[in-house]
This record gives sequence, structure tokens and C-alpha cells, in this order.
Amino acid sequence: MARDPKYDVLFEPVQVGPKTLRNRFWQVPHCNGAGSERPGMQAEFRAMKAEGGWSAVFTEACTITPDSDVMPLVGAKLWDDGDVRNLSLMTERIHDHGALAGVEMCAAGGMAANSESRAPGRVVSQIPHEFNYMANGRALDREEIRRLRREHVAGALRARAAGFDLLTLFVGLGAFPIYFLYPFYNKRTDEYGGSFENRIRFTREVLEDIREAIDDCGIGCRFVIDTLDEPYGYGEQGIRYDGEGVQFIAALDHLVDYWDLNIGTLNWGEDAGSSRFFAMNHEAQYTRIAKTVTTKPCVNVGRFTDPDVMVEAITSGQCDIIGAARPSIADPFLPSKIEEGRPDDIRECIACNVCVSRWEMGGPPIWCTQNPTSGEEYRRGWHPERFTTAANAQNDVLVVGAGPAGLECAMVLGKRGMRRVHVVDEQPEPGGHLNWLTRLPGLGTWSRVTQYRRTQIDNLKNVQFVPRTRLSASDVLDYGAEIVIVATGAEWARDGMNGAMHARIDGADASLSHVCTPEQIALESKAHGERVVVVDHDGYHMGATMAELLAGRGASVTLVTHFDSMGPYMRYTLEEQRQYQRLVELGVRIVTQTLVTAVTPAQASIVHVWSGEEGTVECDTVVLVTQRVSRSELYEELRADAGAVEEAGIAAVHLIGDAWQPGMVAQATFSGHRLAREIDTDDPATPLPFIRERRLLNATEQDYVLGSPALAHGLDVLAT
Amino acid sequence: MARDPKYDVLFEPVQVGPKTLRNRFWQVPHCNGAGSERPGMQAEFRAMKAEGGWSAVFTEACTITPDSDVMPLVGAKLWDDGDVRNLSLMTERIHDHGALAGVEMCAAGGMAANSESRAPGRVVSQIPHEFNYMANGRALDREEIRRLRREHVAGALRARAAGFDLLTLFVGLGAFPIYFLYPFYNKRTDEYGGSFENRIRFTREVLEDIREAIDDCGIGCRFVIDTLDEPYGYGEQGIRYDGEGVQFIAALDHLVDYWDLNIGTLNWGEDAGSSRFFAMNHEAQYTRIAKTVTTKPCVNVGRFTDPDVMVEAITSGQCDIIGAARPSIADPFLPSKIEEGRPDDIRECIACNVCVSRWEMGGPPIWCTQNPTSGEEYRRGWHPERFTTAANAQNDVLVVGAGPAGLECAMVLGKRGMRRVHVVDEQPEPGGHLNWLTRLPGLGTWSRVTQYRRTQIDNLKNVQFVPRTRLSASDVLDYGAEIVIVATGAEWARDGMNGAMHARIDGADASLSHVCTPEQIALESKAHGERVVVVDHDGYHMGATMAELLAGRGASVTLVTHFDSMGPYMRYTLEEQRQYQRLVELGVRIVTQTLVTAVTPAQASIVHVWSGEEGTVECDTVVLVTQRVSRSELYEELRADAGAVEEAGIAAVHLIGDAWQPGMVAQATFSGHRLAREIDTDDPATPLPFIRERRLLNATEQDYVLGSPALAHGLDVLAT
Repeated sequence: MARDPKYDVLFEPVQVGPKTLRNRFWQVPHCNGAGSERPGMQAEFRAMKAEGGWSAVFTEACTITPDSDVMPLVGAKLWDDGDVRNLSLMTERIHDHGALAGVEMCAAGGMAANSESRAPGRVVSQIPHEFNYMANGRALDREEIRRLRREHVAGALRARAAGFDLLTLFVGLGAFPIYFLYPFYNKRTDEYGGSFENRIRFTREVLEDIREAIDDCGIGCRFVIDTLDEPYGYGEQGIRYDGEGVQFIAALDHLVDYWDLNIGTLNWGEDAGSSRFFAMNHEAQYTRIAKTVTTKPCVNVGRFTDPDVMVEAITSGQCDIIGAARPSIADPFLPSKIEEGRPDDIRECIACNVCVSRWEMGGPPIWCTQNPTSGEEYRRGWHPERFTTAANAQNDVLVVGAGPAGLECAMVLGKRGMRRVHVVDEQPEPGGHLNWLTRLPGLGTWSRVTQYRRTQIDNLKNVQFVPRTRLSASDVLDYGAEIVIVATGAEWARDGMNGAMHARIDGADASLSHVCTPEQIALESKAHGERVVVVDHDGYHMGATMAELLAGRGASVTLVTHFDSMGPYMRYTLEEQRQYQRLVELGVRIVTQTLVTAVTPAQASIVHVWSGEEGTVECDTVVLVTQRVSRSELYEELRADAGAVEEAGIAAVHLIGDAWQPGMVAQATFSGHRLAREIDTDDPATPLPFIRERRLLNATEQDYVLGSPALAHGLDVLAT
Repeated sequence: MARDPKYDVLFEPVQVGPKTLRNRFWQVPHCNGAGSERPGMQAEFRAMKAEGGWSAVFTEACTITPDSDVMPLVGAKLWDDGDVRNLSLMTERIHDHGALAGVEMCAAGGMAANSESRAPGRVVSQIPHEFNYMANGRALDREEIRRLRREHVAGALRARAAGFDLLTLFVGLGAFPIYFLYPFYNKRTDEYGGSFENRIRFTREVLEDIREAIDDCGIGCRFVIDTLDEPYGYGEQGIRYDGEGVQFIAALDHLVDYWDLNIGTLNWGEDAGSSRFFAMNHEAQYTRIAKTVTTKPCVNVGRFTDPDVMVEAITSGQCDIIGAARPSIADPFLPSKIEEGRPDDIRECIACNVCVSRWEMGGPPIWCTQNPTSGEEYRRGWHPERFTTAANAQNDVLVVGAGPAGLECAMVLGKRGMRRVHVVDEQPEPGGHLNWLTRLPGLGTWSRVTQYRRTQIDNLKNVQFVPRTRLSASDVLDYGAEIVIVATGAEWARDGMNGAMHARIDGADASLSHVCTPEQIALESKAHGERVVVVDHDGYHMGATMAELLAGRGASVTLVTHFDSMGPYMRYTLEEQRQYQRLVELGVRIVTQTLVTAVTPAQASIVHVWSGEEGTVECDTVVLVTQRVSRSELYEELRADAGAVEEAGIAAVHLIGDAWQPGMVAQATFSGHRLAREIDTDDPATPLPFIRERRLLNATEQDYVLGSPALAHGLDVLAT
């Protein structure tokens, strides 16, 4: 198919300094847990974007000095020649696909606790970091500032040596330019503090220094143009787009080839906004002002998944380049699909922020709910758009359950050429538990998980969704499939069983009228009283979602959790602040570090987990959000009678998704995807096989040196 | 010097199955952040113990299956041949020093969230883990239990292949034996659940399986003999030493060559007890019962640093082998020092649990307050007992400040043969801020930091402590030293400056009578009122310590912190629970997620960080525990006049410890140590040089494979 002409503008080239973008799609810097120490993962993850049509593909934030050690958080590094070598693999692979490679450079300064390097820290003003009480440093004096400038040049030279085409100086989040720029951080009274000119001095000097050293790369800034009102940002202690934001651009425009713009602080859920709270292109109101003071190409972000919105952003003059992180994770081939005239095949980001959460946890590699291949390009060799024909394709497959695991599995099996795949569900529509989940407050966008797979399956002749059909074990035996995959999901516990106590809650019985589970509320419209206690042991969003739902109906809700905070996982998905506020607006009372020990029709008994102090909360209804329980009965029945299974001509019975263990949707789609990829191996999708990351050798045959063996070389560079 | 005969018993050999220990010193399994993926660090860290006289040296907990992925926590792994190769380096280096190498094997089961491996989990009963709401799995059926047994044998065979002499099956904390054993975890109704015999079945079978496969290693259990009362442990849902604990030993004694005993749960501060709460050998009351039912050698732990206590533990029949983790970290040469007749040189563990905390954070390598070389044996090549003569030894050194950084630096400089070292302080005694800190509740044991260094310095002819002397910049210039080291420490902020707001607190001024800092309370005995608010932005222990001190004097104290919990770092040091209880007993009210926005003589104004809800707390005194500020004025003065410094014949002026950046004592001792080690390099102890960990190559010259390249081999082993 041909590209729709209305999208032609997205495929115009753009000049960026001495470099040329072949289209307007730019994967902005974003974390993936690879860093410089998983060079294979990094290279193939980024290469996939280039192959998929992104004309510029960036690293995540890439630190350039050893006292920028933010472990356990994972960032790219260009501290020494070993890092240069490792990231060279990434730039080579990006170049293989005809795209430009970009790096976002920073010295992390006061954000770094230096847990691994044990380097002494350096800061602009000596105050512990607002998000890490362990991170601090010495306030630089003038000589030390000059040294830091030289280190930035050395870092940029290493970036160039590694093959990067576009060198972005990070002017946001956790980097010296903003430690100097924001009054929040900068309490200095010398020529680097106080006035606007003083506060931009360091950035101006560094850009001048870098330009003096390098003239054959594009050099620009990722610039946070607005740090937002309190409590989302720094208020008057930060910068505002129509004040110092646009002034900054005007003042330093002559030193950059491009501006990559966004908003916010390290409270970055205001930028990488969850779909619970933010619509596509929500930053435009802040960023579009840049084009009034610069003619340099401007990159904007805003969870761009809709090509029509992208066209409007360009043609309206808002920006020149469509920047994206999460949409590129969910679908590295988004640009290609537009170019090939098949935008309906785009796998749309749902902005669940699970990708973000893995990085926020500190250590783990990226996961994506919509794209299970994310992070597995190298380790498992998965390509999101390519599937080999299964060696055992001449078989029929029965998938029991059309939730995210079953749908993903069926879809991939279909793409792998299985003769016939039936994905069967008792519901009239595919989606499994997502059908009711996505009707809850804030979760509507998650229905794209089902929609995408449904669309794909509709176009696969060998895959059929069979609705309104509930299969017993004997039905399965009679079905006629050679391979059976059980994807029957999980449900919320009805007895208050929970991880904290590993016991039921006294009186918690969802068969009683005053006790409910989320399914009973959402699916059965079970009646509830005016005063509700939500018991949250889950840790993710369901407790808060139930509280929001019921308070939205007018109930007086108390959310009781043993955790230190409301839905701790929502801190990782950057949803905590706005979700908490939403609940407060609805009058929800949030009680943390507290267990519910017993439930009666009149009250919930509570105890503080540390002090042992007891109390009660009067209520009419208790909603149990304690844990989910796998519904794998069908699988157990089949497993119990291996003889019958064999007689029925069934070669294998597999278990996937929440039916194996309850987890996030991202775990379900991964589970289904993996089984389908491994359906023709001896021992698919059991705890093994597990393929370990391979790392590059960058020194002698005996040792792999994660750093320059010629340490002196590192010193030489820095001494210039 | 010769060994004192009263300690002879500690140096008797002990037979452990087919292996012989050359003495009774056994480094029990303990974490260090090395795992199998920093093989150089692991090998040299453990080798140092062997060199120092420990006759058995163990890994940390070592998982044996890829669905035991506990990232971001760091454990050793024996998942595949790559791990075998990596840990072989450790066993070789231990054998080089004539000790036995041990491994503590486990499959982590329900504790593993599998964030990196993305393996589906396996559990005994399907309930999320009490310490990780993301960790869950499928409840094993019988066939899967048999498979798990085979995997344990495969893991043990890999351990043997890696050169381990002692194979410990972990029966505690996070491993299948206890998921089956404790009713807390095991809700099964088949032959693996219910009765005691059923609950020990899996462990019995695994030990039998391993013994069938291996007869030339010592095989034993690290057995938690008592899981303690609630709220410290599982109460009736666990096991008690005089009930199922001793029954377990009796039942399985014929299957082991040794018992390595301790107490507690994953709430392991009851085992690795902080010196705030626990005395040496505190587990004896639980563990000594073992010797009534077994003649196998029994290892006990209890922060053994005193050889007399060790002797008593042996001769009284409490145990046969002195186990230690933290004492071996603080001083790997503890056994040698006893053997050499110099027990006064032992660097005693202070049980601050900073070592524990680094692991608990998830990712970082080990730190030790008393032993800065801990974790640097490989990376920086530091040996705790060996120091090279400095190339510039023919120089006099002036160290200004005799706190932990200055003392450590002076001591090491002395050991490196500097001509003369004067460590000068205005106080009459060395110790710096530790002098007042160690008089606070719970911190007395930390005085060993000063005592050890004082003792060492007393024995160094070239090092002199100069008391009661305060040096100005011109005094320093006149002093006559060629090298000047400023170690003038830090002090608590007097204006409420804090990381959360990066601003002072309205009305917070410690020159006023109703506002205090910790120094004013502790050093100046500043008067305080009856109703006290402690404002805690620090994150570690000082807020809680101040609250304990003042409540102990009868004040009514409210501890207000913006953090989610009281002193979050105390969770990492395993002190949170008992410290919280101690405060509650003293009537302290703890208010979390709350900022103090203003202070008057009558009250503190507060606001909840998420809801914005405001309030007030009436009080007479506010104690500001918001942040510390470096006192580096002397250094700035000297730096400001490079000419005068040069004229005075001073070759270099350095800054270390809290005067560079305020931190934990562990950071101060490290800082002083590092400068002294690098005093004769070009650019000592600046952010660089930073030496990166080297990893072993275990595959082709092109790639370092962190796992078996022959994946099939991994499968073959597991399919047996």
C-alpha cells in the first residue's frame, strides 16, 4: 500500500546542523535499563527503532563523569573508552538502518549518590537532592567549574568517537545546566548565581566549549522549557515557558542546531504523563512558544501515536520534529507503518507507564505492555514485526481464554503460521478481564491492548475468536486441537488472603453482602453502602481505582493499606501524586502503614504495622483488594489425566498469563508472546530457557574490562 | 607474638563430612553485592577472608534457577556454566589461602519477582511475598516438585564443578525448604503440606537426592532454628527452637555433615542485629539446643568479635564453630590477629549495619564503616593489612581534624611511612563529631571507630595526635607541613535548609531559644521545652535518635518527617521496627509524609505532602534535623591564596570527609583512606580515577557470554 499523501509532511527531510534527518520522526532520549553495560541489548533495542523508520534514535540520559553514578538507576555512560566501545555497537547498528544516532549527555551532580563509584560528589549548592537524601556533594568553586567544563568537552569528544551524530546537552532533570539555572538548586552569590545571565553562564560556556572542539556533529539541547507550578514542579523557584524558558532559547539559540523541548522536573510524570491524566500532545501549550524565537528545528513530545495529530503539530507551526519515547517503545515501526499506508497496524502506546516503572525501580530492564518484544531484541532475538514459521505449524491450537495472554499468544501463533488457532472465551467479546478493567476510572486507554490484537486477529485467516463458549476439560479433550493453551486468568481473592499476613482476614467473605471484590463491584454491580473501606494489599492501582470509583458515586471511602504509601507501584508509574490528589478531591481518606485485621457488617478493625496501635473504622462495605488468585482449574484437570490427554491426540498442554501467576497486563502479554515464539521448542516457556545478556569484549582475551584498561588515558583526556 | 594458649581451642581442626577445617572460624554466607557477575570482586573479597584466617569462606545466598531472579537485589548465581566459571575464580582464590570454599544454595521461589529473567514464578502456595508485592508464582504440582528436586541436584553439581567444598542447603529466609516448612507460607493440603512430616518432606528429599549424587563435599543446612514471636517473626505460623526447630534437626541429622544455625525471617534484623538493640551472641538462647540432638558440628553466629566470648561459646558446648559475617567484614584478619597474639589489633565490627544497608538498597556493592577496604580488594587492590610506602613519604603531613576521616587518613598515611603526620583537633580527645554522637542513645558501640584508630595511631611512631589546637589559615601556612589535609567535618543546619524544599523553614533559626540543632542539644546542653517537634529531613537515624533522647528525658515528642516512614535508611539497616517501637514506648508521635513549613515559639505549621492538608502542632521547642553543611572554610581560605600556599612550601592541600560532603561515617572513613592510598598519585581522590570492575571472559574472544553459550547444555542438565 502507498502512503497517504496527507502524511507526506512527516517524511520530509530536516537539516539539523551538519546532519540531515530523513524524516520528522525522532526517538527522544529515554531509559530502557540497558545503559552501557548491556551493549547488546542497547544496540539492538535502538536499532529496532531505526529499522522501524525513526530517523534519529537517542540513548537514554548518558552520564559523562564517574561521580555521576546514580546506581541503582541505570543510565548510559560515557566515562571512559570502554563505554565508547560499548556504545559504538549501538551507533553502528543505528547507522546500519540509515538513521542518525543521538546521545543525551549530562553530569548528574547532586542527583548522584555514587553508590558504586564511591566518588565524592559535586553540586552547585550543597543541599541534599529532593528525591535522594543520600545524594549530595561539594559546592564547586571556580576552578572546579572550569574542570567540569573540560569534562563536558571530554564527554562530547567520547560521544563523537563512539559514532554519535547528534550531541544533546541535557538541560533538565538531573544535570548541571539546570542545577545552575533553577533558583531551586542555585543559591550561589558568585557570578554563577543570582541573575538570569549568571544562571545560564555555565550552560553557555559549555556549549561554546563543545562547539569549539566539535564542528561535524549536530549539537543541541534537550531543554525543559517550563518546570511547572507547585506542587507539580518548582513554581517560582523554577522557570516558566513564557519567562525564562523562552528567554533561555533566545539567549543561546546561536549555539545550538536544534531544540528538543519538554516540561517538568524529576517529578517527571508531568512529562511522561500517564493516560489516567494526560491526553496526547499535552505539552504543546508550553513548548510551542519556542518557534516564536527560533528558526532552529524544534522537537516536541506528547505521546504522539496518531499521525493526524502529528501532521497538525507540524503544519500548525508548533514544532518541526515529532519526538516520541513511549510510542516508539510500543511500536518501533510506527513511522514505517504510516509510510506503508497502514496506520491501522500501529500498536498504540497506552501510557500505562510500565516501561517507566521498570526503570524507576532501579535496575530492571524495560517492559512494555503493548510490545512484549521490547527489551528482548537482543537477548531472545525477537523482532516485533517478524515471525518465523513454526516447525510444528501443521497443528491446530486451542487457546482457552481471550484475555491479554490468550490474545497475544493466538495472534503470534497465527503470524507463525499455525494451521488453525481458535481462541475461545465465554464472553461475547475478546479482552478477558480487560473488558471490565477498562471501564474503570482512568483505564479506558488500556482497551487498546485488546483492540490491537483483535484487529490483527481479524486479519489473520488462520486465527478465529470463538465467543460465548465455556469449555470444560472434556470439551477440551474433544475439541480436536493438537496443542492446548490454557489462559483462563485470575480473579480477586474473596477471603482477604494477602501477602502481608499470609492469612485471610477475619470476617472477610465476599459471599456476604457487606464484603465485595473488584469483580463484584465492576461486573456484578454488587450493592455497596455509603461508608466504604477499601483494603489495599495489592500495591498497584486497583485499590486507588476502586476508591475513585466508589467515591465518585458518592460513597465516603477510606483506603487502608499496610504499605507506606498509596499504591506504591504508582510511584514507579509516576501516577501517585495526581491519583492521590484525585482521591482527596473525592473526599477519600487514605490510611497507610495500617492493616485491617477483621471485618464485620459495621466496621473494620485496624492496627498500625509499626506501633501496634489498634482502632476501628465504621463502614457498611469492605472492598477486598488483597491479591489475585489464578484460575487454573482447567489446566489442573487436564494435567491430572495425562492418559486422556494423550488419547485425545493432544501433544501438549500449556499454561500462560494470570492463570500461571497473577501479574500486570505486561506480564500476561509477555507470557503469551513467549509461548508462541517457543511453541516449537522442546520445553517452551517453562522457567527455562533463559538466555543471558551477552556483553562486548573490549580488552584482552582474558579479561573483559568494563572501562579503559589504560586508566591514564582517561586521566589524560580529563586533564585537558 | 605468640598465641595466647587460652585461645588454642579456636584453632583446633574440625571434621566436616569429608572435609577438614583448619580452625573454628567460619565466614557464614553473607551478601556483598558481588554476585556471580562481578567475579573479580567476589573472588578477592572472599580470598581476603581466607588469607585472614577464616577456615571456611562462603558465598552469599546463591540461587540455582533462572526463576530465582531477585533483581535489583544481588545474589550469587549458579544458573549455568558461565556462573560456574565465574565462581570458580572465587574457589581458586580461597583454596590459594588454604581454606574451604562454601556455597549457600537456594531456589528463591516466591521471593523472586523475576524482573530481569521474566521467568514465570514458582511457589508453594500462591500468595504474594510479604516483602515484595510483585513477587508471586504458580503453586507447584507434584510433577513440578520433582522437577524442582532435580534442579536442586543440578545446582549442587554445578557448585561442585565450581570447586566448592561445602554445599549448604539454605533452610531459611527465601528458599523452598522454608516455603514448605512454615505454615506461614504452606497452605497445601497434599502430602507436602499440613503435618510436620509433610512440611519437611521436600527438604528431606532434596538432601537425599544431593547425597545420592555427591559424596565428596561437605553437605549441610543453614537452618533458621526459630522464626520468633510476632511482630518480629511468624509466631505460631513459623517454627520455634524448642519445638519444630529441634525436631527438624533430629529428623534430618543423618543427612547432613553440619548445621549452620541462626534465627529469624526475612525481617532479618533479628539475626543481623544492630548494636542499638543487640548484644554479642544474642542468638545462643535459641541455637544451643541443637547440640542436645546432634553431634554434627554446629556453627553459631552472634556478631562474635571478642575471642573470650568465642572460647566460652565453644567450651560451654553451645556450638563447635564460630560463625561470623559482619565481624569478618570489619576485620578479615580477625582469626590471624588472635593467632598472632595481637587481639587488640582487631578492628571490631560496630554493627551499624551499613554493610547490610547497601545490599538492602538493591544493587550497590558493600561498604563497611570500620573497614574501608571492604569491596575494594579487587577494584582498587586494597589490602586491609598491607600498605606500600608512599613515593612521597619524605614529607610531613598536617591533618586538620581528628574525626573519622582525619583519623583514618592519618593512620593510613602513618602506615605508608610518611615522615611525620600530625592530626590536629581543637577537642581534647580524637573522634570529631563521633565524640558527641556516640553518647546518644544506642550509638555507644560506634565509639570503636575512634578507639581502633586511636590505638593504631598510638603505635605509629610517625603519627601524633595534637589536641586542643584550633588552626587558622595562617597557622596552617606556618605549620611547616608539605601536605595539608583538611578534615574539618560538617554540622547540622541552623536554618532548616532541607532537600525536600531546597529552602529554609520560616522561623527556623537555631540562634533563637526555641529552635535547636542536634549539636546544641548534645554538645551545648541547650535547654528545650516539654513539647518538642523533631523535624526530620535527614533520612537516617538522627531524627529518631533525637526523639529517643528527648522523650527519654520526659519530653512529649512529635517526630515529623516528609518521608513515607520514620528514618527510611533505618529500614535498610534493619533497625526500623525496633526503633519505631522504642519511640512508641517513649510516647513519641510519628507523623510521616508531612512537611514543617513554619516555626514559631508556640507551634510548628505542617502540611501533608500529597493532600496539601494543613495543620499545626503545638510545641515549645523545634529540633532541626534537616541536613548537614560542610565546614570547609579553612580549605576555601587556603585555596583562595595559592600563592601563599606555595610560598609556605605546601605542595598540596586536600579536602576529605564531611568537609567535602556530609555523609555517613562509612563515607568519611573511606574518604580518608582513599586519599592516603593515593597521596602519591598525580590527582588523588578527586572524582577520578575510578577503576571499573573487570569481568571474566568465559566464551569466545568476541563476546563475553554471561551464561552458557551452549544453551542446550543448560536444558540437558535440567531435563535429568
